[in-house]
Amino acid sequence: MKHYRLCFLGFGNVGRALARLFVSKSVELRDNYGIEWEITGVATRRMGWRASDEAIDVTQLLAGNDQTNSEADIDSWLARAKPDVVFETTSLNPETGQPAIEYMRQSLQAGAHVITANKAPIVYAYDELNQIALAQGKRFMFEATVLDSAPVFSLFRETLPAAKVRGFSAVFNSTTNVILETMEAGRSFAEGVKTAQDLGVAETDPSNDIEGWDSIMKVCAIARVILRTPLLPKEVRREGIRGLDSATLQAARAEGTPFKLLSRATVNTDGSVTASVRPEQISANDPLAGVRGTSLAIHFELDMIPGLTIVSHRPNLQSTAYGLLADFINADKRGLGTD
Amino acid sequence: MKHYRLCFLGFGNVGRALARLFVSKSVELRDNYGIEWEITGVATRRMGWRASDEAIDVTQLLAGNDQTNSEADIDSWLARAKPDVVFETTSLNPETGQPAIEYMRQSLQAGAHVITANKAPIVYAYDELNQIALAQGKRFMFEATVLDSAPVFSLFRETLPAAKVRGFSAVFNSTTNVILETMEAGRSFAEGVKTAQDLGVAETDPSNDIEGWDSIMKVCAIARVILRTPLLPKEVRREGIRGLDSATLQAARAEGTPFKLLSRATVNTDGSVTASVRPEQISANDPLAGVRGTSLAIHFELDMIPGLTIVSHRPNLQSTAYGLLADFINADKRGLGTD
Repeated sequence: MKHYRLCFLGFGNVGRALARLFVSKSVELRDNYGIEWEITGVATRRMGWRASDEAIDVTQLLAGNDQTNSEADIDSWLARAKPDVVFETTSLNPETGQPAIEYMRQSLQAGAHVITANKAPIVYAYDELNQIALAQGKRFMFEATVLDSAPVFSLFRETLPAAKVRGFSAVFNSTTNVILETMEAGRSFAEGVKTAQDLGVAETDPSNDIEGWDSIMKVCAIARVILRTPLLPKEVRREGIRGLDSATLQAARAEGTPFKLLSRATVNTDGSVTASVRPEQISANDPLAGVRGTSLAIHFELDMIPGLTIVSHRPNLQSTAYGLLADFINADKRGLGTD
Repeated sequence: MKHYRLCFLGFGNVGRALARLFVSKSVELRDNYGIEWEITGVATRRMGWRASDEAIDVTQLLAGNDQTNSEADIDSWLARAKPDVVFETTSLNPETGQPAIEYMRQSLQAGAHVITANKAPIVYAYDELNQIALAQGKRFMFEATVLDSAPVFSLFRETLPAAKVRGFSAVFNSTTNVILETMEAGRSFAEGVKTAQDLGVAETDPSNDIEGWDSIMKVCAIARVILRTPLLPKEVRREGIRGLDSATLQAARAEGTPFKLLSRATVNTDGSVTASVRPEQISANDPLAGVRGTSLAIHFELDMIPGLTIVSHRPNLQSTAYGLLADFINADKRGLGTD
């Protein structure tokens, strides 16, 4: 039996869903994977750096009744909580990836696997975090960052050896999908934002979604890890969806070629990558034509395979949390190494 | 550097495409995977049991000019060719899986990995072949059997731990897709068959496709390996596409709910599996609605994930061969174990 001390950096909707998932999969983790676990640290802006020598009571924690003491900073938090795994689910900082990158660096150096739902650290610090993980015999994993629970990084890592990606197109953002569909139905941009917020996919300030930054971070993360090409967000041609009015969207839908906020990347003959995130009309024959509502999808073209599409339907908090849990089980299985 | 002796059981279109792929990926296999290879045996009904102590000249083999001696039977073939890997690509026998199963058994017992494009041995002999492989420290692999080069078995083996499949729906058969689309365009069943044959997806006798047996074998293979439930072909409700006329198909397409030969499986509460292969009308919102022409797709519903769809677009001989090559590289990477 292996025993894991788990810590949560960020404990919003996703972190809480993950804690609930650990509870509900406890027996299966023990019986099928030989894994026992306890939570020894939880850090958020509001709660501070709570850490404990002993297991924190999960029920109390989820009920908001946890009384664990807060440490002064991440150093003492790591020293007391002694995490074997840190789950990082703080919010996206598309400009720098901080402070998440610094937290992850310290967590890896303290000897924990780091599993994140945060795209920015891949874009800005993939090499560095990977190297620390490798030196520590730990793993830096991030499957849930792009397509929720649908495998993308592990797909290429584990199942598609010696295949070269020539390019991809993707619908990476639920919020813009919902806004565009709301406007196609004759309602306003603001009503679209509200619908996306009611569905739980848009944040209070949905600018990163609407302006394309959320999608760009995904493009850059895939470029870095799967295409093995560093690509900075500012190098991606970007156009948000604010320039589209309902009449235009309704006409495009009526013609059977609706607009979506499409992400695209092409590997050029010199190995560089050209990428864009912008509204495009999609034909009925496009592999991404059927993507609706909150669903996400990516379509790859490879040297050996004419086309491979992965669609994640109606992701929810539980499936996002599952993406993090799957990384954890795979980290346990492999033990050592990096993505 | 690892050195592999490769043997081909069956050397039709797929086997030949695989041999060409090994040639074209030679440098990459050596430089990136430390793999060198040679072909030492090729067996077909027409060529007999050709085997050699030394490497067979691939160029001559592909040109049809190979003069390697034939052995009397599989025993002496295995004894001379001494395969480290046997690629099995003989044609489907949906009733028994023979003689492929017997060939694979002997190949595994002779100490080779066995990699197949043949569904029937999974349906009829998965446990037995797996156990022999495990005892031998070899692998029995079959990723190319269901969705061509798109990962299905390795997806669950490697990327989706602790997720339970509740059911799936799939478009598993190119030939029937092409026939139905041809008839939707107002042409005859026979013209549909001819179109599928011209595209290289239908065999001279396409009965296994048309009557649903090809799809049923895929349903049973996935049930056995991913749902871990033995399911015999006769237990699957089956209806081929012969009962559909052009008028019906055209009307359904005009309504936006075209017919496809759909495979479905549901895991019941007692763990048993109920499955069907039959023509069904598909709504525009169905995850499989966009599957066209020769493309193949499967949609999974899981306990942790609302929906996950994998689409293999316009598979061709090279991508089928790639499915076998990917199994080989993964077998080399893992060394030991079974699916």
